[in-house]
Amino acid sequence: MFQSNPSKTELSQLGEFGLIRRLTSGFVLQNKETVKGIGDDAAVLRFESEKDMLVSTDMLLEGVHFDLTYMPLKHLGYKAAVVNFSDIYAMNGQPKQLFVSLACSNRFPVEALEQIYEGIAMACKAYGVDLAGGDTTSSKAGLILSLSVTGEVERGKSVLRSGAKQGDLLVVSGDLGGAYVGLQLLEREKNVFMDHPDAQPDLEGNDYILERQLKPEARMDVVEYLAEIGVVPTSMIDVSDGLSSETLHICGQSNVGCRLYEEKIPIDPTTYAMAREFNLDPTVCALSGGEDYELLFTVEQGDYEKIKGSTLLSVIGHITDVSEGVQLVDKSGGMHELTAQGWNSFPGTSA
Amino acid sequence: MFQSNPSKTELSQLGEFGLIRRLTSGFVLQNKETVKGIGDDAAVLRFESEKDMLVSTDMLLEGVHFDLTYMPLKHLGYKAAVVNFSDIYAMNGQPKQLFVSLACSNRFPVEALEQIYEGIAMACKAYGVDLAGGDTTSSKAGLILSLSVTGEVERGKSVLRSGAKQGDLLVVSGDLGGAYVGLQLLEREKNVFMDHPDAQPDLEGNDYILERQLKPEARMDVVEYLAEIGVVPTSMIDVSDGLSSETLHICGQSNVGCRLYEEKIPIDPTTYAMAREFNLDPTVCALSGGEDYELLFTVEQGDYEKIKGSTLLSVIGHITDVSEGVQLVDKSGGMHELTAQGWNSFPGTSA
Repeated sequence: MFQSNPSKTELSQLGEFGLIRRLTSGFVLQNKETVKGIGDDAAVLRFESEKDMLVSTDMLLEGVHFDLTYMPLKHLGYKAAVVNFSDIYAMNGQPKQLFVSLACSNRFPVEALEQIYEGIAMACKAYGVDLAGGDTTSSKAGLILSLSVTGEVERGKSVLRSGAKQGDLLVVSGDLGGAYVGLQLLEREKNVFMDHPDAQPDLEGNDYILERQLKPEARMDVVEYLAEIGVVPTSMIDVSDGLSSETLHICGQSNVGCRLYEEKIPIDPTTYAMAREFNLDPTVCALSGGEDYELLFTVEQGDYEKIKGSTLLSVIGHITDVSEGVQLVDKSGGMHELTAQGWNSFPGTSA
Repeated sequence: MFQSNPSKTELSQLGEFGLIRRLTSGFVLQNKETVKGIGDDAAVLRFESEKDMLVSTDMLLEGVHFDLTYMPLKHLGYKAAVVNFSDIYAMNGQPKQLFVSLACSNRFPVEALEQIYEGIAMACKAYGVDLAGGDTTSSKAGLILSLSVTGEVERGKSVLRSGAKQGDLLVVSGDLGGAYVGLQLLEREKNVFMDHPDAQPDLEGNDYILERQLKPEARMDVVEYLAEIGVVPTSMIDVSDGLSSETLHICGQSNVGCRLYEEKIPIDPTTYAMAREFNLDPTVCALSGGEDYELLFTVEQGDYEKIKGSTLLSVIGHITDVSEGVQLVDKSGGMHELTAQGWNSFPGTSA
């Protein structure tokens, strides 16, 4: 009566073009800027003349960036898309078109790929983005996703990493470290499962940190809020590699120093408790964990009055002269030179 | 005195950002449209208001799309870039920015990646394109390249696959089948080498077909020529999967039929001779071989006078009503329904 096994269609039954048609048939163009989407040699986009265009690209590999043991395919599609959108928001822009290249082996039935595209479709709908092109191909090893996103920003209003000035305030949205402790939890339960395949994973009460890892959101709301209150950040970056690494990027590219206050770093209670359970310092999780996809930015001091009431934002430090270095002030007032220990894509590397 | 082994720098010595800096330091922005290239969350592009923007993306995997046994890394970089540019020319546009994502394992020293980027740089220089972004990451299996290209076209002047009309002429640039027989030759010599590692590869006199496979060019010149003589194709596609597959794309998306004359298909004498040596029908090599990156397009009959003198172009057929099907007329006048047997990215598939 019930079909307990989902149907499996071999990739070879469809061929490349049949597969693309099947995966993308549910997508409807939402943006007038997308003149021609999937189905030709290139997509055709028409931005208004007072806009600048933004382009970002990201590659995700199975076994390096994600683990299908605990990452549901639909979530993977959603996250891959959202992480790309985040790069556009980090420029103060709006993502408009997404291009998805996917490579996988025949061990993936068509239905598995459909789940990935369902997740991508959910993300596109939530953020108002058109799937406008891509590529599918076979891989001998694992699943590979390569995404490119195009977006727009008012002409000259893109916010680079390089615009921070001495005296600016350092601000971060939301809270940090959650995605990292969520990952630790998933890894722990995976190991338990490997040893005892009958054991039920113990994930209860940890929805928040699991969602931070498995279904992160990009801070569209923060970009919209800043526009509403009339604040243009002087520099901005999204937190993909950890607060430490991103602060160093801003300071390095702006040629400034920074003082960052440990006690001001926003950490959710669930994150805090789980970090403690793993004998991890919650501050270190925030500094070095990464994958939070919050926005880290600087604003002129004069904008403090405009942002101070927001529950979306925390002022966590201020920009100093480059000669003062990039310093973390701990809870007892001690100063520590900040070093990047974010996720590094070449394992074994010390960055 | 001479260093016979090229120096080898481990990827882990540089870290991700150091690697990106090293690989991209030689690139200089050439286009005013590239406001901000590498080094931020996204590239910032500013196109003139009377332009439309084009975006295309492609993924290339070792062992699927290329074989490092006979594909020098520099050529690989050049070809990967050019193949992407070709998609933009096939829309009647000009490529302007390139985004390169690269994944590889630690078995590749930095110098190997530098060779790939040298090839990319050569292609960017030859075609006037800026390297404007990308991503590098580690792969557990082989080398993966994912490229996206952005370009521009006069507003409303992009040429889709869907505009062919009954009575239009079917035109192709250059000659076909060369890349495919070049590949056969390389595969044969690879097999000889595998069996007898001391044997010298026998490639003499075949520069043309080898270059067609290893260092193809995109037909920038054809797009420029058409603009010069005032011809706007009614539909266009580039020949990546073979003449047969591309003709079917145009006819399918334009909802028309076609009559294609075997005797009109341009085939170089070297291609012809090598096909015969492999007991292959040269026409089949042109129809199903692919990777020629020539432009296949349709023009109104009234444009015949303008193009007939060109040595760049061959008129190979004409567009008919959809009810007449897509027909190949062989040298003895026999009619054959055309079927796609181009390169199919999922081996084992019958498309």
